[in-house]
Amino acid sequence: MTRKIDIFDTTLRDGAQSRTISFSVEDKLNIASALDSLGVAYIELGTPMSSPKDVKLFERIDRNSFKNSKLAAFGSTRRKNTPVFQDIGIKSMLDTNMDTCVIFGKSWDLHVSDILGTVPDENINMIYETVRYLKSLGKEVIFDAEHYFDGYKSNREYALSTIEAAVKAGADCITLCDTNGGSLPDEVYALTLEAVQRLCVKVGIHCHEDSGMAVASSIMAVKAGATLVQGTLIGYGERCGNANLSTIIPNLQLKCGYRCIPDECMKNLMFITRKVAEISNVSLDANLPYVGTNAFSHKAGMHSDAVLKLPRSFEHIPPDTVGNSRRIITSEMSGKSALLAKAKSYAPELTKTADLTERIINKLKSLEMEGYTFEGAEASFELMVRRETGRMESFYKLEYFKTIGDLSEHSSNDVASAIVKLRVGDRDAVNAAEGDGPVHALDLALRKTLYEFYPRLRESYLCDFKVRVLDPESATGAVVRVLMTSSDGKHTWSTIGVSADILRASYLALSDAIEYKLMKDKEEESETI
Amino acid sequence: MTRKIDIFDTTLRDGAQSRTISFSVEDKLNIASALDSLGVAYIELGTPMSSPKDVKLFERIDRNSFKNSKLAAFGSTRRKNTPVFQDIGIKSMLDTNMDTCVIFGKSWDLHVSDILGTVPDENINMIYETVRYLKSLGKEVIFDAEHYFDGYKSNREYALSTIEAAVKAGADCITLCDTNGGSLPDEVYALTLEAVQRLCVKVGIHCHEDSGMAVASSIMAVKAGATLVQGTLIGYGERCGNANLSTIIPNLQLKCGYRCIPDECMKNLMFITRKVAEISNVSLDANLPYVGTNAFSHKAGMHSDAVLKLPRSFEHIPPDTVGNSRRIITSEMSGKSALLAKAKSYAPELTKTADLTERIINKLKSLEMEGYTFEGAEASFELMVRRETGRMESFYKLEYFKTIGDLSEHSSNDVASAIVKLRVGDRDAVNAAEGDGPVHALDLALRKTLYEFYPRLRESYLCDFKVRVLDPESATGAVVRVLMTSSDGKHTWSTIGVSADILRASYLALSDAIEYKLMKDKEEESETI
Repeated sequence: MTRKIDIFDTTLRDGAQSRTISFSVEDKLNIASALDSLGVAYIELGTPMSSPKDVKLFERIDRNSFKNSKLAAFGSTRRKNTPVFQDIGIKSMLDTNMDTCVIFGKSWDLHVSDILGTVPDENINMIYETVRYLKSLGKEVIFDAEHYFDGYKSNREYALSTIEAAVKAGADCITLCDTNGGSLPDEVYALTLEAVQRLCVKVGIHCHEDSGMAVASSIMAVKAGATLVQGTLIGYGERCGNANLSTIIPNLQLKCGYRCIPDECMKNLMFITRKVAEISNVSLDANLPYVGTNAFSHKAGMHSDAVLKLPRSFEHIPPDTVGNSRRIITSEMSGKSALLAKAKSYAPELTKTADLTERIINKLKSLEMEGYTFEGAEASFELMVRRETGRMESFYKLEYFKTIGDLSEHSSNDVASAIVKLRVGDRDAVNAAEGDGPVHALDLALRKTLYEFYPRLRESYLCDFKVRVLDPESATGAVVRVLMTSSDGKHTWSTIGVSADILRASYLALSDAIEYKLMKDKEEESETI
Repeated sequence: MTRKIDIFDTTLRDGAQSRTISFSVEDKLNIASALDSLGVAYIELGTPMSSPKDVKLFERIDRNSFKNSKLAAFGSTRRKNTPVFQDIGIKSMLDTNMDTCVIFGKSWDLHVSDILGTVPDENINMIYETVRYLKSLGKEVIFDAEHYFDGYKSNREYALSTIEAAVKAGADCITLCDTNGGSLPDEVYALTLEAVQRLCVKVGIHCHEDSGMAVASSIMAVKAGATLVQGTLIGYGERCGNANLSTIIPNLQLKCGYRCIPDECMKNLMFITRKVAEISNVSLDANLPYVGTNAFSHKAGMHSDAVLKLPRSFEHIPPDTVGNSRRIITSEMSGKSALLAKAKSYAPELTKTADLTERIINKLKSLEMEGYTFEGAEASFELMVRRETGRMESFYKLEYFKTIGDLSEHSSNDVASAIVKLRVGDRDAVNAAEGDGPVHALDLALRKTLYEFYPRLRESYLCDFKVRVLDPESATGAVVRVLMTSSDGKHTWSTIGVSADILRASYLALSDAIEYKLMKDKEEESETI
């Protein structure tokens, strides 16, 4: 029988402690809903005691809209020497009206004496009374044994007595936490096994990435008998992060035969991680296992040849199982077959022997020398190939642009402006626009001039741009690479421009973005005719 | 006795297959020298057979300049049905004159039939004859058993016979490769243990990150008896990357009692990883264990309070062991004590109760609402605190700047220009400069105007700038965050500017960078008097 593992996501609580993260209440609501659609068992929303934002979240969240996930509030054991029913932390947790309460308490004697400043017995009382009180009110209680592994190594008996106190008080689950992330997977396995064997309740695991082994330790804990795994969907968390659930879930479900989420949700894994990353305003690490854009990308000539022949020769799982896809990377190292695989949809005349292929490979190499990189700019790559193969119509020609930027301490309304002159067909068109900064003004002037000729261009907009300095030693005069992502609601495409002038680099990327849209529109129109 | 583990770095060979990496020969020479200074046992330089760049590298590298590391060339077993002494791959490998040759061969029967297109026995012959030939020429031979773990699971007897053939032919080391990265640490442990027990030679391990467990699997292999660990210093590699040596080395040496690199090199670990990342033109992932800037950063109020009281309460190792340091992150979540810890060196009058502290925390919150984030811009944070506490002298005042950008298809020499008017003391100063793009022109005009008043400003320069779009839906009119890193050779500092106008955002970051330098110079001068 397949063992069911409860996936417990703490992106909104422990994940919010990541250095680069700052969630609004709206962000938290959107992430919770995305996690529910993935089918995780628990979503930990936050700590009502320490954050007014979290109080608002608990007020606003609509429990009935959650199909798969239970919602949990987080808090600590009662303060020392305070009756539990008077403790303001416990009170604020009860005010959330959540059915599931996660209580963390100290399992490391060092923390009891040096951080809490109390005696070992009082800490045991704090754990027992807090869990007991919440159970008497009918709550489901998960006890997070903070620093369990460090505590065990420091004082085994005491660490065990802390979790046993929680069990005696009626806790539904004991989560062993490697709070500092310093433990090794074999230690985690051994100590989890001991806890599973001693305790008569569910055991969970909560790992951090400080030794680079949070995923492995979580999986070893499951192999030792843990049935709840805490982590954050994309590994967000303090310091090096929490255990990454987007890696743990497919590892457990696709490779070890456990059940973590409904089968039909697995193919949404990549989409949902991207969505959560987007809401978090963090770009998803391209190298992430399973869900990163590089996870199934092949660059080396020999590997990409083999993977096209026999996918499992260089792929540990079929990429579409998790909603990802194979990418053949164009670069100096990839063989001709990789280039052809990519280009054949729009340039079928390219064959392994054609001079044309050679010319394109040389063009690619010389652009790469200038600082171009087409890994993140596949639309610009396609335009380059189409131009080289004579399959690209010119929609317009730039005559010139001029931009004027202005900033004065005495004016509150500084604007930049741009003048653009284009040649479209046999007509000259001059136009100008004001904008927030010269790139914006240039973008607007360019589009304004072209709307007249190509009305469908209005559908497209820029979603993101990135700038990277390529030779930092040249300071503000350095060559910069501008990467832009555009969308028209249906499709998304990325373009690139490289120049020492950020305006020229931006123009090249903008212009590719526009031409790509015009080219695709034209193709679509000729298909429907 | 401490067991010695040979660290084998393949950044220059397998790491070069990373999607985002493109090394020049110069880059490779610099990285090899950095790896030698870290004290790794082996550096794999490349594959002479498939890359002309690598041939040049082997020609140019000066073996005598390496103090700690052996240099290795990489290649495959001979082609099928070809006498080994006529094989061009083997020949190109011998042409490198390296003492250590790494030969990879197939251990997975599926690859033998479907990728090589040959019979099982011929593959065994290819392995045996290749290793034997290189041994007869006096080489040290490391045999990389490609896809060993997948091969073993597909056909145990055959996989074992491939590595036994290499041993019989005289190989000095057998490296078990989890080429597709799909294996789990407990499998890696069990199969490595079996190989160690059967073979009379050194066993190595080579893992990939596709299941997020390359570090854990490498360490479990060492615990099973492997004495050579292949990986790349920062985890670069195809798809999700190779096993990350900057995590494995401290895990093995600081936590498990093995010896990987000389003790005195450990504290350079962070510095050398940064150096390699810089040469590779990749920013080092801030969340990397041990060497990332976030690895010992603390954001949550309670954690940062505790860590200041008792570092090991939330730190798995002392950060300076690997050359890293503790960071207390200023953000809405951090308590006052974190802010004070950071600010007390330059604003000692801040106390927990002062109104001033309250005012600074409110200022911080309102700037964060605008899009500021001081995690990567500590100089701007310091300037903000100094301005709020009245500890910041004004070195100049901007009256206005104007920039003009130009691009014409008919001119090959487009320049941007900027006019700046500043008030310095009781004087007005107007100046102008041309540059590659308006940001460059503005930077130059600003500096040119100030050099006259502050000659030491010439020591400083900009090392990096980053642009992030904060509200992508506003396209080129979006609010952008500009982060700049400056240096004067001795110190490095980072500043930030946020605006919908990229020029204004750049100006704010530039201006902070300049004021920070002027402020530090003045402090230094007053100390020496």
